[in-house]
Amino acid sequence: MLRPLLRQSARAPRLARAVTTAPRAAAVTQHATTAGPPPPPPAPVVKKAEAKPPATFHVAGAQPVAVSSSGVTFRMADGREVLDGVSGGAAVACLGHSNPDLVAVMARQAAQMPYAYHQALGHDVSEELAQFLVDRSGGAFVAGAFLNSGSEAVEAILKLVRQYWIEVGEPQRKYIIARSPAYHGNTLGSLGTGYVPGRRNLYDNYFSDAYQHVDTPQARDRQPGEGDAAYSARLAAELDAKIDELGPENVMAFIAEPVGGTGPGVTPPPKGYFPAIEKVVKKHNLIFIMDEVMSGTGRSGSLFAFDAVAEGVKPDVISMAKGLGGGYVTISGVLVGQRLADVIRRAGVWKNSHTYQNHPVNCAVSLAVLKKIEAQNLLANVRARGTQLLEGLRAAFADDKRVFEVRGQGLFLAVDFDVPASLAPRFGARVKDRAMKNGLMALAGVGTVDGVNGDCIILAPAYTITPEEADKMVAMVKKSVDQCFAEL
Amino acid sequence: MLRPLLRQSARAPRLARAVTTAPRAAAVTQHATTAGPPPPPPAPVVKKAEAKPPATFHVAGAQPVAVSSSGVTFRMADGREVLDGVSGGAAVACLGHSNPDLVAVMARQAAQMPYAYHQALGHDVSEELAQFLVDRSGGAFVAGAFLNSGSEAVEAILKLVRQYWIEVGEPQRKYIIARSPAYHGNTLGSLGTGYVPGRRNLYDNYFSDAYQHVDTPQARDRQPGEGDAAYSARLAAELDAKIDELGPENVMAFIAEPVGGTGPGVTPPPKGYFPAIEKVVKKHNLIFIMDEVMSGTGRSGSLFAFDAVAEGVKPDVISMAKGLGGGYVTISGVLVGQRLADVIRRAGVWKNSHTYQNHPVNCAVSLAVLKKIEAQNLLANVRARGTQLLEGLRAAFADDKRVFEVRGQGLFLAVDFDVPASLAPRFGARVKDRAMKNGLMALAGVGTVDGVNGDCIILAPAYTITPEEADKMVAMVKKSVDQCFAEL
Repeated sequence: MLRPLLRQSARAPRLARAVTTAPRAAAVTQHATTAGPPPPPPAPVVKKAEAKPPATFHVAGAQPVAVSSSGVTFRMADGREVLDGVSGGAAVACLGHSNPDLVAVMARQAAQMPYAYHQALGHDVSEELAQFLVDRSGGAFVAGAFLNSGSEAVEAILKLVRQYWIEVGEPQRKYIIARSPAYHGNTLGSLGTGYVPGRRNLYDNYFSDAYQHVDTPQARDRQPGEGDAAYSARLAAELDAKIDELGPENVMAFIAEPVGGTGPGVTPPPKGYFPAIEKVVKKHNLIFIMDEVMSGTGRSGSLFAFDAVAEGVKPDVISMAKGLGGGYVTISGVLVGQRLADVIRRAGVWKNSHTYQNHPVNCAVSLAVLKKIEAQNLLANVRARGTQLLEGLRAAFADDKRVFEVRGQGLFLAVDFDVPASLAPRFGARVKDRAMKNGLMALAGVGTVDGVNGDCIILAPAYTITPEEADKMVAMVKKSVDQCFAEL
Repeated sequence: MLRPLLRQSARAPRLARAVTTAPRAAAVTQHATTAGPPPPPPAPVVKKAEAKPPATFHVAGAQPVAVSSSGVTFRMADGREVLDGVSGGAAVACLGHSNPDLVAVMARQAAQMPYAYHQALGHDVSEELAQFLVDRSGGAFVAGAFLNSGSEAVEAILKLVRQYWIEVGEPQRKYIIARSPAYHGNTLGSLGTGYVPGRRNLYDNYFSDAYQHVDTPQARDRQPGEGDAAYSARLAAELDAKIDELGPENVMAFIAEPVGGTGPGVTPPPKGYFPAIEKVVKKHNLIFIMDEVMSGTGRSGSLFAFDAVAEGVKPDVISMAKGLGGGYVTISGVLVGQRLADVIRRAGVWKNSHTYQNHPVNCAVSLAVLKKIEAQNLLANVRARGTQLLEGLRAAFADDKRVFEVRGQGLFLAVDFDVPASLAPRFGARVKDRAMKNGLMALAGVGTVDGVNGDCIILAPAYTITPEEADKMVAMVKKSVDQCFAEL
């Protein structure tokens, strides 16, 4: 008698512990600040006089303006320096800014062969990058392709799994099951797959019913006394019930972030979650997709995020982006395992094709980023600095009841607040803006519980940060949070 | 009594003059060669022994491998040189390859500030690029944003028009009307918008009914003796009927390429088409979108393609890509007019956000590309060499009844063949492969009439080509086509 309840739970707002539930706003603009990190309020340095709006379309208010960057420091137009606690703003610049080695690789490839259309010409650059990643996947993957954003990588996978089921003679398989809340990208297919109400709902006109959702594991959703094993089993049962509801023969795939990103606000899985989920996925012969755009490429402490948190579970296909280009190039990737590759190769053509697919400059820089991570043993630093930040932040807020929890995996961390969603500006945004004034760039997460409730501040610094920089980040977060609490 | 017929025509296969209609294949793999330019058959230089498939996922067969490029020349792994007749393979490298000035700009920006998340930090780079384009739009646009592919630009517009109608209180507007055949990108929203059966149909599970279609103007669709004015009026009436069918109060926007791209196979509009269409769009208060990804950024002979072919009609919003980055960076753009900008700015937030949006390196290189086009007066060369190629190709095939027509706009041209769709490989692909063997890279268009019928070869060389290079391209196309005809 549990299943009917679970089936209904995916899109139902969930109550947050000690969080005042704000009304769900109907108009788009009222959703604005609940749709991921909102634009910042007026800051000291403005780009244009108010009389003429910027030609860059479009964020509300005036933005802090940066003029240069190096390492983990931005230099602002007003002469200030800002410590980059979130790799350029969105967990991207994983090796720091303006690295001369990466600039040299970029210039060398652009001078040798900047562009070749992937359907017309092959080249060694994408081949080397794909092989490098395949070789480090422990057999999970056999091939890869490179697109231009995390969204495009997720879209490529949505198309790939559909083509797979058509090629094997099961065209009735039409559903993809994702988790809620989750953010998988900003193109319509990836928006439909994810579930962040303020970002997704207004585009409902474009979505078929192919996109289905179950719950993302979140600490606030646990029942009293429910341990990791019981919670994981409950979520796996929910997935099983959803598949039964849709008809197992109609479901293509299940997609999850190894560590939840900005959707749920940096959520490592409960112990036992991925093994329990994998049993259900395998029982129904689904394709297991992991979206490693935000948590992958080293951020979670291993090259692939699933190696850090999935307890031996290997996906059939993953998306990568952000750190994959280190911020120097706008690249994403899809890595494909044997099951999918065999069918598509036999079919002859993977029907995914973008003009900029396997772009030589993007691929060359990405390979240099990955080689540098390996040569400098930076994953060890990710793990060590990640532990330092996690312990430092937990100690800093140990006695503060308004902090729900500090959580993280590698250099991907969140301080989650128990504050009302009715605050304007949202508390997460206040902390982010205060931190920027204090000289630290961080990322706000708002609506992370259910699209409305949930405020957190996210850190995702470069893999190169020093112990001193990590301590400084802890101190600056602590100071900024305390200032914002004092103003409530 | 005409309208009911017209309403049914959008997705119905249309008969091509003297073209044998091939059966519509049901399986994905059989569609393969009709979905835009197909992968080439085995070529002399192969990447890997057949025993181990390439790590790059995935095109069928072995590809010609390129190792370097400069100007309009690719150097292949086997030592051959290939003349680049299509700007890197897909109308991208509009200034030629490996230009040292562009490499220098790229390296300089990457060394100064490679990345900043657009929601967190503003910078002058995107602002200058947006302003540069706005200033040259004759008042059509007031702001711009920069994404990572043509697909993403189209997706951004799909989201923008939906947000617009919600903001102004007409959330029931859910339909976008596009043309068939047309290609607008490879993400699901842009695939749904376009209509190329072999690329789109297998993903039907993801599409709502938001995507509606009317006919793309094509020479083969004209009725006997139907002139430009009558044909344009008929197409405008078809659009009007489609809007009436959906309910004018339910339609958001109409989208068209100023010059049709790989979908219909390079199709400049009939005279009077855009003015006639605009009347219908304005009558119903729709948003007019033009997709300039392939035909824009100078390729049609003016910076904006609509300035070359739309007879004074200005869209509310356009997408740009390909030439916008010259192949050096993977950038696309959206330019927004006053009507849309006013509403979104008043609302406060444009709900489009990508991690790599307004990427500093991409924007800096794009601005350098645009400045170079202007400083070197390359649009005059686009027009002059375009005329030379058009006249040269027409003269070369004047007496060949198997050539349906040669058409083009600026440096964007197609030779359209009257050949059976049942040929395997397709005739367009044969010409492309033969041209590559003869030392010319071109692009094949297949299925350009209705997704099945239609074979053409497309040229879209760099804006820098010389009269001698243009003559050489004509001669090499002529030779390759004649060889392929001789083998039939």
